[in-house]
Amino acid sequence: MTAKAHHFGGEMNLMSPERIDALIATYRDGLLGDTLPFWINHAVDREFGGFLSCLDRDGTVIDTDKSVWIHGRFIWLLSTAYKTVEQRPEWLALARHGIDFLRRHAFDSDGRMFFHLTREGRPLRKRRYIFAETFAVAGLAAYASATGDAEARDQAISIFELITRYLTTPGLLPPKVNPETRSMKGLAIPMIMIVTAQILREVAPDLAFCPEVTGLCPKVTGLCPKVTGLCDQWIDRSISEIEHLFMKPEFEAVLETVGPSGEFLDHFDGRMLCPGHAIEAAWFILQEAQHRGGPGLPRPGQGDPRLVKLGTTILDWMWARGWDEEYGGILYYRDVKDLPVTEYWQDMKFWWPHNEAIIATLMAYQMTGDEKYAVWHRMVHDWAYAHFPDPEYGEWFGYLHRDGRISTRLKGNLWKGPFHLPRMQLKCWQVLEQIKAGRRG
Amino acid sequence: MTAKAHHFGGEMNLMSPERIDALIATYRDGLLGDTLPFWINHAVDREFGGFLSCLDRDGTVIDTDKSVWIHGRFIWLLSTAYKTVEQRPEWLALARHGIDFLRRHAFDSDGRMFFHLTREGRPLRKRRYIFAETFAVAGLAAYASATGDAEARDQAISIFELITRYLTTPGLLPPKVNPETRSMKGLAIPMIMIVTAQILREVAPDLAFCPEVTGLCPKVTGLCPKVTGLCDQWIDRSISEIEHLFMKPEFEAVLETVGPSGEFLDHFDGRMLCPGHAIEAAWFILQEAQHRGGPGLPRPGQGDPRLVKLGTTILDWMWARGWDEEYGGILYYRDVKDLPVTEYWQDMKFWWPHNEAIIATLMAYQMTGDEKYAVWHRMVHDWAYAHFPDPEYGEWFGYLHRDGRISTRLKGNLWKGPFHLPRMQLKCWQVLEQIKAGRRG
Repeated sequence: MTAKAHHFGGEMNLMSPERIDALIATYRDGLLGDTLPFWINHAVDREFGGFLSCLDRDGTVIDTDKSVWIHGRFIWLLSTAYKTVEQRPEWLALARHGIDFLRRHAFDSDGRMFFHLTREGRPLRKRRYIFAETFAVAGLAAYASATGDAEARDQAISIFELITRYLTTPGLLPPKVNPETRSMKGLAIPMIMIVTAQILREVAPDLAFCPEVTGLCPKVTGLCPKVTGLCDQWIDRSISEIEHLFMKPEFEAVLETVGPSGEFLDHFDGRMLCPGHAIEAAWFILQEAQHRGGPGLPRPGQGDPRLVKLGTTILDWMWARGWDEEYGGILYYRDVKDLPVTEYWQDMKFWWPHNEAIIATLMAYQMTGDEKYAVWHRMVHDWAYAHFPDPEYGEWFGYLHRDGRISTRLKGNLWKGPFHLPRMQLKCWQVLEQIKAGRRG
Repeated sequence: MTAKAHHFGGEMNLMSPERIDALIATYRDGLLGDTLPFWINHAVDREFGGFLSCLDRDGTVIDTDKSVWIHGRFIWLLSTAYKTVEQRPEWLALARHGIDFLRRHAFDSDGRMFFHLTREGRPLRKRRYIFAETFAVAGLAAYASATGDAEARDQAISIFELITRYLTTPGLLPPKVNPETRSMKGLAIPMIMIVTAQILREVAPDLAFCPEVTGLCPKVTGLCPKVTGLCDQWIDRSISEIEHLFMKPEFEAVLETVGPSGEFLDHFDGRMLCPGHAIEAAWFILQEAQHRGGPGLPRPGQGDPRLVKLGTTILDWMWARGWDEEYGGILYYRDVKDLPVTEYWQDMKFWWPHNEAIIATLMAYQMTGDEKYAVWHRMVHDWAYAHFPDPEYGEWFGYLHRDGRISTRLKGNLWKGPFHLPRMQLKCWQVLEQIKAGRRG
């Protein structure tokens, strides 16, 4: 903890009832009064279907190309808001609008998904990664969870199975770097598999899954242990990979890229840290700690202790690496040996690492009660809210220079869309309500 | 021209004999006393052969992986310095050292070249572009030109033929974006083909080329019109593509990416300008104007008028797009409609656009006598020399923030190596000597 952090901690009760209510208002009102309306007003393509995410500051569409990632993510958000906030028919209809476009245009003949489409839905690019597919699983599973829609549920399961087949069959996903020369594993895969499996696991487990669709279970009604088992297994496997291959106690850091058995690769790629990315993994693990901690509100002592320790260790290490002592905010890339990073934009401040750090610090506080995390939450929340929001047109800018100046007025592109910010607003609102409820009883 | 530029122009004779001598000293002494020694001292791998270009500020190797681009480029520099500056045996031996490594490790079984190798030379990545090959042609041709080495000459011709086959055979170079949906052409190809053909054209044309090696000409001795003709044809074709497909008078801009017949693509890619890149093409065209202007020292009136006009038009347009009126220096990317660019590092200042603009403005002054170009040369020279050089360890930093602050202390990586800076130093030194000689008579 820095001197500045101590100063914060000393000057006020960071998680007083008043502060919690003020934070709830910030997140809730931001989500419902700003972020969701911004995207609903500007991103819905009423003519060709689907969503347009390449937006100027005021929401004007500046590129009509469509991002398959963004579709899965917006469907997830709309469905999750419908299920957990309020059953607004508009949200459900828009989620359905996104699913229809995905089904019509986003799938290649091999069952995999494209990355980038024209406005009409014609394929521009398919990538070697399976992230379009993981976001589709999240969107379809959340929709199924919100509605009980069996077709969406079965499609989510079937895409998840396809992903696991691609991840476990050597040669199906050709790597960028010749694997005969240097075999590498990325943190992104286990990280995304944790949260995707967590979302899929929530899908209507009291219904039978048809074996013709999923191939997973015998024809039964009631709970489907094979689906929850598959999800648990991928979550276990992914957390174990992060713990045993990517976390390096000798550096107190989580690496982005390692050899197949966790070997440290002393090259630009192998030394590179992305603190925001690891911190995102940290809260997925804290979320799993809550799930496995048994019934009862998430609170200190409730979560699975091993996973709470794991998630907070990642947060502790990567906060130390990522927090910018000079200007504040989370630096994008660092080198684990403090050598120069080869990505030239390494010291920029992107919106999403701040969203992830705001969630992770709040959940770490929720699960441990350690005031340190309330201090960090305050630091990253305040820095982000002082620099990213657009006071004129709403939503957040995405890309700042290290010192917090805006680098581009862009509101969306093929990567930035209705996801990290509204997910943070929704998640933090929920966590704060849990903290309030926990204090009541 | 800006108010600031007028101010410069008014206050001094920008190209006085004293100023020219001072500039020659800056470029010559920088090349011979700083840039070449920096790379010769730090980049030569005496153990495994070839060159190491991933260097920290002080020249320490921070990644032992090797860049095939850098090899072709350093071989070109060493050979050209040997031929045009001084016949230092060390330079020739090092060029040979690079060629040996390339021949042993850089070629795939299909004749194409890898992009990225391990220190030992094992292949890590091969890319879909043909730039590794064009830089190898430049290196081998310059070596042949410096030494008369027939094997290097024939290999350069043979790789050039392979490049032309890949560029003209549909389907051989799979594009990033599905061509059935959106076919696109990039400025990089015609641009690099001009300079590569210019370098190849210089290769010992008074020797016979063996038809078994090149497949280009019947067995003759003396001049080989088929090689020079092939080069001229690719230069014509490439300049014509730039003029008719990429230059857009309605925008007064040179686009980076267009449709196959020069269609404007109103998307992020299609609107993106890279002023430094187009300005580099401008001086390749001015160089061709000199070549085609007939004998005599390059000077106002000597060059092919159409090509002088073309090159200076590109420079005029892209200077207006690229020069940063607020902080000085050349901005990396701009949007042709002044919409936000999707590359987040778009406003950074990289070393190489400044090297290219320093050359282009000086050559434009040489070919036109227009004082405006002397002013611009002074502006970009002064800005670059105020911000990029490392006073402590020599050479230049590569990556600055918009306001000129250093973003990373890195001296080299897989892209930054002994090329743009020393090429500028050599070329500008030569141009200034020509201007001096021209004034003498």
